[in-house]
Amino acid sequence: MKGVIKRELDAELVDITHTLPRQDIRSAAFWLREILPWFPPATHLVVIDPGVGTDRAGLVIVAGDHALVGPDNGVLAPVTDRLSETTAPVIYRIDETAFSDRSQTFHGRDVFAPVAAAVARRGQNAIDTIDYLTPMTSWTHLTFPEPSIDEDTAVGSVLAIDDFGNVITNIPGSFLANRVGDHISVNGDSVPAAMTYAAQSPGTPLVTIGSHGNVELAVNQGRGDVQFDLTLDDVVRLADLDTSHQS
Amino acid sequence: MKGVIKRELDAELVDITHTLPRQDIRSAAFWLREILPWFPPATHLVVIDPGVGTDRAGLVIVAGDHALVGPDNGVLAPVTDRLSETTAPVIYRIDETAFSDRSQTFHGRDVFAPVAAAVARRGQNAIDTIDYLTPMTSWTHLTFPEPSIDEDTAVGSVLAIDDFGNVITNIPGSFLANRVGDHISVNGDSVPAAMTYAAQSPGTPLVTIGSHGNVELAVNQGRGDVQFDLTLDDVVRLADLDTSHQS
Amino acid sequence: MKGVIKRELDAELVDITHTLPRQDIRSAAFWLREILPWFPPATHLVVIDPGVGTDRAGLVIVAGDHALVGPDNGVLAPVTDRLSETTAPVIYRIDETAFSDRSQTFHGRDVFAPVAAAVARRGQNAIDTIDYLTPMTSWTHLTFPEPSIDEDTAVGSVLAIDDFGNVITNIPGSFLANRVGDHISVNGDSVPAAMTYAAQSPGTPLVTIGSHGNVELAVNQGRGDVQFDLTLDDVVRLADLDTSHQS
Repeated sequence: MKGVIKRELDAELVDITHTLPRQDIRSAAFWLREILPWFPPATHLVVIDPGVGTDRAGLVIVAGDHALVGPDNGVLAPVTDRLSETTAPVIYRIDETAFSDRSQTFHGRDVFAPVAAAVARRGQNAIDTIDYLTPMTSWTHLTFPEPSIDEDTAVGSVLAIDDFGNVITNIPGSFLANRVGDHISVNGDSVPAAMTYAAQSPGTPLVTIGSHGNVELAVNQGRGDVQFDLTLDDVVRLADLDTSHQS
Repeated sequence: MKGVIKRELDAELVDITHTLPRQDIRSAAFWLREILPWFPPATHLVVIDPGVGTDRAGLVIVAGDHALVGPDNGVLAPVTDRLSETTAPVIYRIDETAFSDRSQTFHGRDVFAPVAAAVARRGQNAIDTIDYLTPMTSWTHLTFPEPSIDEDTAVGSVLAIDDFGNVITNIPGSFLANRVGDHISVNGDSVPAAMTYAAQSPGTPLVTIGSHGNVELAVNQGRGDVQFDLTLDDVVRLADLDTSHQS
Repeated sequence: MKGVIKRELDAELVDITHTLPRQDIRSAAFWLREILPWFPPATHLVVIDPGVGTDRAGLVIVAGDHALVGPDNGVLAPVTDRLSETTAPVIYRIDETAFSDRSQTFHGRDVFAPVAAAVARRGQNAIDTIDYLTPMTSWTHLTFPEPSIDEDTAVGSVLAIDDFGNVITNIPGSFLANRVGDHISVNGDSVPAAMTYAAQSPGTPLVTIGSHGNVELAVNQGRGDVQFDLTLDDVVRLADLDTSHQS
């Protein structure tokens, strides 16, 4: 993919990550939403593409100051929502037949890379001049599950697990903010709520607010996913300790 | 290595991969052959070098529009062949004694990186002016095993396994092309031949044509190497089902 | 982090490594000391930061021609020593409160990345003009344990283990230099001392001088850490064979 882009355009390439869980559209969608908005205007190429070669579309999305190129499987949807808070995105479908020599198993190289190079070369304001792109209105949305929260309980689920094993939930950090320093119930176990990993001694589990603003289950210098025995989509129930004893 | 190059030359560095199987010359040779020709003219630095510090030579190869720098252990041979279809390559031996402070265990840093910087700085047409390079004619070839193919059977072997666990054989995709949609025998098991991974339901094994043009054994959203219990060099026998029943 | 830097500054980003052992300050300190001095003058951003969010300081260090940005936990100390052999380093403390929107769990993104961008943009000679930096004199030192060496015995420990499984000790290569070609005792086992990995047949253990100048325990095309059953900080005792029999 890098070679194909470099043949078309002397763009600077910045690797964002090569270590997302393979084929996992939802985890990738989460990380893209968290990472891409930090960049200055750029063309972002995303290939999490288990449906490569099927009739799933390929997309170019102009959202805010960014252009996104990748498959229409939902992986681009949450970051598009995040980047489009003030202006509606414009979505284009890639006519893959314009890439007549494409393989059926690696559109990252054969379709998305040359498209990303073309988009970067023309600029986001001239995307309409690319003849194999057609505006489309119906595309694949992907939204993350919403937690249910009341005064003393939050029931959510695991959105992602980072490389350190920190378990990222969909529960907003605001639920934790006034409980820092106390213990709360995490799926029935009493766990300290802390502002930092290192507020607990090494090896100790804790619940904190991650850099994404959501509640995160962690172990100082250890792995939260192992400690809490949680994987993607598992339910996470936070409660004040009194409440949890009654439930 | 990046520091050494940057000290010599303000070149842009593009990481191709750091995840090749360690010390595995043949897998690396396969991937270099598949990847490097997609790049525009460049200097490529390759360090798969289990013989570092022995009397194995270091090479600079000019092949097509590209320059290759690395050890003379065969890792550069298949990509050199691929890049030299119209013009013969020119091979130079590096006089390692020109790098008097070199370690015996990391020539990537101490020899190949400064050589690559010098080659990139001088340009491929001025390589003859680098005094520690001497044209040579005898170097280490590496060729991949050839499959044997007749009308209804192909017997080949495993060339490489990619990061997804897809098993890449040396059998050309043309053997599969008119069998797509049927089942064929893969080492005795009946397996669907499909154009795409997603043509089968998740977890289902399949045989397809990879982005390199060769037959690939895969599992949609799973690992082909585990499913088919295959590793490098193992025999892969594809046959029409009738034929396989007779064999 | 890359996005934050790119928003501030059109600097070229060079990835040095993303595969250091997580949270392991001492291994990171070793590799930084070995790697960074090979670079031309640059701003280096280091985030091995288990104490993120606590009152550990953040630092900018000007050492030799380089600027280092990262946490005050010792990870920057050995490379600072190495870069400061002719000129004393200048150490600045980052006033983190200047970054009012910072998270408590990811100062790499929220503090160190914007600081590194500011340092790179102003240049190392204008660091005094950055108002959230204050010179400091007391910071966290980290030194590696010293081996004890006499004429026929060296007792040291494991400093680091590289990606190949090579076991890097704190014993200087000079101890081995006149023993190459002989066998020596490594923790009681007789092991050949060799100049290169490939001097032994594949799978054979050996003791050699690594590219860092220290004694290294390795297996040709295998893993020294497994063969010698060693991990970080373990004792390594090298001795002439006669001597070892008496010990």
